[in-house]
Amino acid sequence: MVKMLRKTSDEIKKLGKDLVNKIAKGQNPFLDVPIRSLSNVFYDQKSKLIKLGNRSSKRFLFNVAHIRKFVQTSEVAANAKDLIEAGKHISLRQAFYMMRRTIPGTNIDIVDEQEESNKAVEDLELITGYSREQLNINANKNGAAAGKIIIKDKGDTIDWSKLGSGGWAIPSNTEDIQFKKVNAKFVLYMEKAAIWERLHEDRFWDKMNCIIVASQGQATRGIRRLLSRLHHEHKLPVYVLTDFDPWGFYIYSVLKYGSISLAHISDKLAVPKIKFLGLTAEDIDNYSLRKYIIKFKDVDKKRLEQMRKYRWFEGKKDWQRQFKKMKEMKGKVELDALVTKGVSFISEKYLPEKIKKKDFLD
Amino acid sequence: MVKMLRKTSDEIKKLGKDLVNKIAKGQNPFLDVPIRSLSNVFYDQKSKLIKLGNRSSKRFLFNVAHIRKFVQTSEVAANAKDLIEAGKHISLRQAFYMMRRTIPGTNIDIVDEQEESNKAVEDLELITGYSREQLNINANKNGAAAGKIIIKDKGDTIDWSKLGSGGWAIPSNTEDIQFKKVNAKFVLYMEKAAIWERLHEDRFWDKMNCIIVASQGQATRGIRRLLSRLHHEHKLPVYVLTDFDPWGFYIYSVLKYGSISLAHISDKLAVPKIKFLGLTAEDIDNYSLRKYIIKFKDVDKKRLEQMRKYRWFEGKKDWQRQFKKMKEMKGKVELDALVTKGVSFISEKYLPEKIKKKDFLD
Repeated sequence: MVKMLRKTSDEIKKLGKDLVNKIAKGQNPFLDVPIRSLSNVFYDQKSKLIKLGNRSSKRFLFNVAHIRKFVQTSEVAANAKDLIEAGKHISLRQAFYMMRRTIPGTNIDIVDEQEESNKAVEDLELITGYSREQLNINANKNGAAAGKIIIKDKGDTIDWSKLGSGGWAIPSNTEDIQFKKVNAKFVLYMEKAAIWERLHEDRFWDKMNCIIVASQGQATRGIRRLLSRLHHEHKLPVYVLTDFDPWGFYIYSVLKYGSISLAHISDKLAVPKIKFLGLTAEDIDNYSLRKYIIKFKDVDKKRLEQMRKYRWFEGKKDWQRQFKKMKEMKGKVELDALVTKGVSFISEKYLPEKIKKKDFLD
Repeated sequence: MVKMLRKTSDEIKKLGKDLVNKIAKGQNPFLDVPIRSLSNVFYDQKSKLIKLGNRSSKRFLFNVAHIRKFVQTSEVAANAKDLIEAGKHISLRQAFYMMRRTIPGTNIDIVDEQEESNKAVEDLELITGYSREQLNINANKNGAAAGKIIIKDKGDTIDWSKLGSGGWAIPSNTEDIQFKKVNAKFVLYMEKAAIWERLHEDRFWDKMNCIIVASQGQATRGIRRLLSRLHHEHKLPVYVLTDFDPWGFYIYSVLKYGSISLAHISDKLAVPKIKFLGLTAEDIDNYSLRKYIIKFKDVDKKRLEQMRKYRWFEGKKDWQRQFKKMKEMKGKVELDALVTKGVSFISEKYLPEKIKKKDFLD
């Protein structure tokens, strides 16, 4: 891992040297930055991922229209190099403050708004091919994990099956975790911490030989990278447990196909083989949950219509059926409603049966 | 602990038996419920806590205006008893679903809205004197902790100094954690996970012999109870680290004095001796941070005016000075701005110096 980090900072140094050399030679140095706008984002049928196209634009130092962004990207690169060499990590917000310094001899700050520094960080991701976590700029921290795995992280050996009721707090950056002993057969990710606590109290991960991971709402980059690494490095199937609702479905969509805003790192964050194990229209009928339908607001209806039309759900019969039935039901149903069948119904019957029957949506 | 839990369920059983006996005798049973409205909440100068007054109202079974709430409270009591006996916990949302059952022979559900079940849970807290965590109905899960303490929880021994970059994920319910070995000298709570990650990466807790705890935004009940227990059971001072902003100050206010909505359990959740270690107007000048003032929106201004007038900040010169200066600055300053002095400035200089000089606000 250390070797890899050194490589990252070496690469940034090379970038800087190239720029300096070009200036010394009287040339006009430029950064070649892949274009991130919607027009350059597409759904790749082959990899089944939302990806960035190969259009890019050159950003020159000696160009009045380019120089501000050029300097911002160079500044992030310099900061990232320092952070990597010091072995320290900062947040996006902190990166913004670091970049708000005034250029000596002027009254110009390198950035005025966080929007600018965020974009500069994304530019550097694109130029170097490293994720911002690898550039030591972390995303949000959120979520908990428990289960049949022993990891090593920052010199500590941590057994996720021996962490009491709380579990392991997932860090913002899961790039450097080492998986020492993986006894789990699969990973179950859920969007709600209360469901995680239900499964954890029932020691679901012990009975089912798995790992349980929860965020609260949309999964952080740290969680996405964790799921992706467990899947790609240890061939663990990953299942997603959400409510029967457009927002839950969207969480699945992002985990599986990636997202438009992070299209440039779908390879690292997405798990194309992930399966949906959450509430389906069929579950709602099988378990007589129609009583618990929560009527849609306009915003939910609109979201559902958007989802139906996503390229990656086109021709997916199972999903189109869910969308259609959801539209007919005019509402959503929460996983919590399963508690009406018994407190531990979800961990003792609902999930084990669905997993046994391979009753997944793909 | 088991004994205590038994006691809780015994008390609920007694409540039920009393009701049944009264019905058998042809009497009209009632629940005596303390009134939770603002008119019955006051700031207690002696304990320095926001508390509930002693006005209560009787809620009768055989009274058309009372029966719905009477049944709801009895239903929560029955559910809580079952949960305690089964050793299982549910969330407020799940409690709502459990209570949505239809009364046999009618088409009436015990509750229609979560508002109703939430209130019934609060009623039961008030009637029994147990917190809802003790009634096995949990709040939200959020937050992480690290530091010089070894706890025992659910049979696992967990050393908070050996949990890698993530730390221990704080559960929704911290009532049953056992503190086995406390080597920490104080607890530092912060509202931002990114600041926690900064301090954790710098092993602040190791150098300063402490425990660091973070939520993301307002502290959960689980975190508040954790801080309160560490303070009351182990005499650890607790310090609060927030931005210089009305919302950060309010987080401090809630941790110290309690809140109006949870006035009935201020004793359990609040830490009257908690100290503010966050950004002050003086810090902003000492460290030349005025450049980083973020202009107030109307909502911030309004919040500041409300804070100034809180009874518990009346006559507190240090705090009134902060409020006044904040009003003059017309904006807030974030802790993250300290990164401009150096990535680890906060953990190597800012905090150690303030702690050494006892530069707290009380």
